[in-house]
Amino acid sequence: MTEETQPHFLNINKEQLKNPSALSPFIEHTLLKADARQAEVIKLADEAMAFGFWGACVNVCQLKTLLKALGNSAVRAVAVVGFPLGATLPEVKAFEAHKAIEAGAAEVDMVMNIGALKDGDYAWVSKDIACVVEAARGACTKVIIETGLLTEREKEAACLLSKSSGAHFVKTCTGFAGGKATQADVALMRRVVGSGMGVKASGGICTFEEAVALLLAGANRLGTSSGAKLVKGGW
Amino acid sequence: MTEETQPHFLNINKEQLKNPSALSPFIEHTLLKADARQAEVIKLADEAMAFGFWGACVNVCQLKTLLKALGNSAVRAVAVVGFPLGATLPEVKAFEAHKAIEAGAAEVDMVMNIGALKDGDYAWVSKDIACVVEAARGACTKVIIETGLLTEREKEAACLLSKSSGAHFVKTCTGFAGGKATQADVALMRRVVGSGMGVKASGGICTFEEAVALLLAGANRLGTSSGAKLVKGGW
Repeated sequence: MTEETQPHFLNINKEQLKNPSALSPFIEHTLLKADARQAEVIKLADEAMAFGFWGACVNVCQLKTLLKALGNSAVRAVAVVGFPLGATLPEVKAFEAHKAIEAGAAEVDMVMNIGALKDGDYAWVSKDIACVVEAARGACTKVIIETGLLTEREKEAACLLSKSSGAHFVKTCTGFAGGKATQADVALMRRVVGSGMGVKASGGICTFEEAVALLLAGANRLGTSSGAKLVKGGW
Repeated sequence: MTEETQPHFLNINKEQLKNPSALSPFIEHTLLKADARQAEVIKLADEAMAFGFWGACVNVCQLKTLLKALGNSAVRAVAVVGFPLGATLPEVKAFEAHKAIEAGAAEVDMVMNIGALKDGDYAWVSKDIACVVEAARGACTKVIIETGLLTEREKEAACLLSKSSGAHFVKTCTGFAGGKATQADVALMRRVVGSGMGVKASGGICTFEEAVALLLAGANRLGTSSGAKLVKGGW
């Protein structure tokens, strides 16, 4: 199946979610701290493979280590772009996305320009996203809208602009701005983007119960550093 | 005077520091939050001009607004690069620095690759800095070492590598990783880099007393969002 015909996300089967390990195909195992070391990236890859997670998400400088550790496994390498402030130029985000894809990333998670959104500069926000989507050349592109900093109307605008600019996913939080993934935000995002786009919940997902609630609220991807704990948990 | 012969920093006159307004030429008025709006950037510029600060420091996407607001004033536009995690590729940081200088930034503050430093990958750390220094084409380049995440030996290595890679300043903190500027860290940095390099204290500088203590410990630049309060203060 080519990148074009392969869907970027799975749908939820409620029955399956009674079994903790059924969470695995929705999880991106995540390590984004500034002082992450190579040994931690290798451990992340090992765990993602052992649990059969969808992907592993790192900063761009760790991609090479991650890809080497993943080898030929089915776990996808995901890289963040313009992270975590989203406050650089569209050209810089596009260049970073290009370098990530060139290095072997299967997906990129960019941070929206939040100041531009709040200033109502929707042309900037759209261009910013479209530049990254183009640089990613068909690879799954997610837009982190940083829900913790937005009003309800701003969240709606962020979702609409992400969709109209060609992104494949909207995503809740960076984990660096104080906000966390909530069922209400996921439900809002799902309502605005409809069923044709992915919703990734991320930020503070620590328990199996939270993870399931977010999937049932409309998420079809979970970004968390607690993935190993989640799939070992139960009701 | 050309960029080559102009010193990148002032030295301290202890007598002057009894007068709060004497702090002004050491201050970079700083606004780096993800959701900063244009009106806040314009206010930052207005205050920096009113108080005669050295510079105003923003994210790259706000440079255009900042430069327009500063007009022909003597206040320097400072942009951050690879901020605040420092965890992207050297090429991406260099490209961001190039775009910042092209847009009109007088100085760039880059974040060191902290994971590479901790892994002892000094070749990566050095290349990362050298690439930005080259892209900045002689403009003052500062390296944020993020003291809050480092051991004493790592702080020393970070300073040595910054100096040997051609940067003009070492800088304490991003303000996003929990650490803050301390007299002990500034003194360590000054001891390692000697008198030929600048030391910028940044992160949590809120009072006139703290600011003076940091200058006396060896800093010759202060990054703070409390600049207006500092220069109105007293002993």
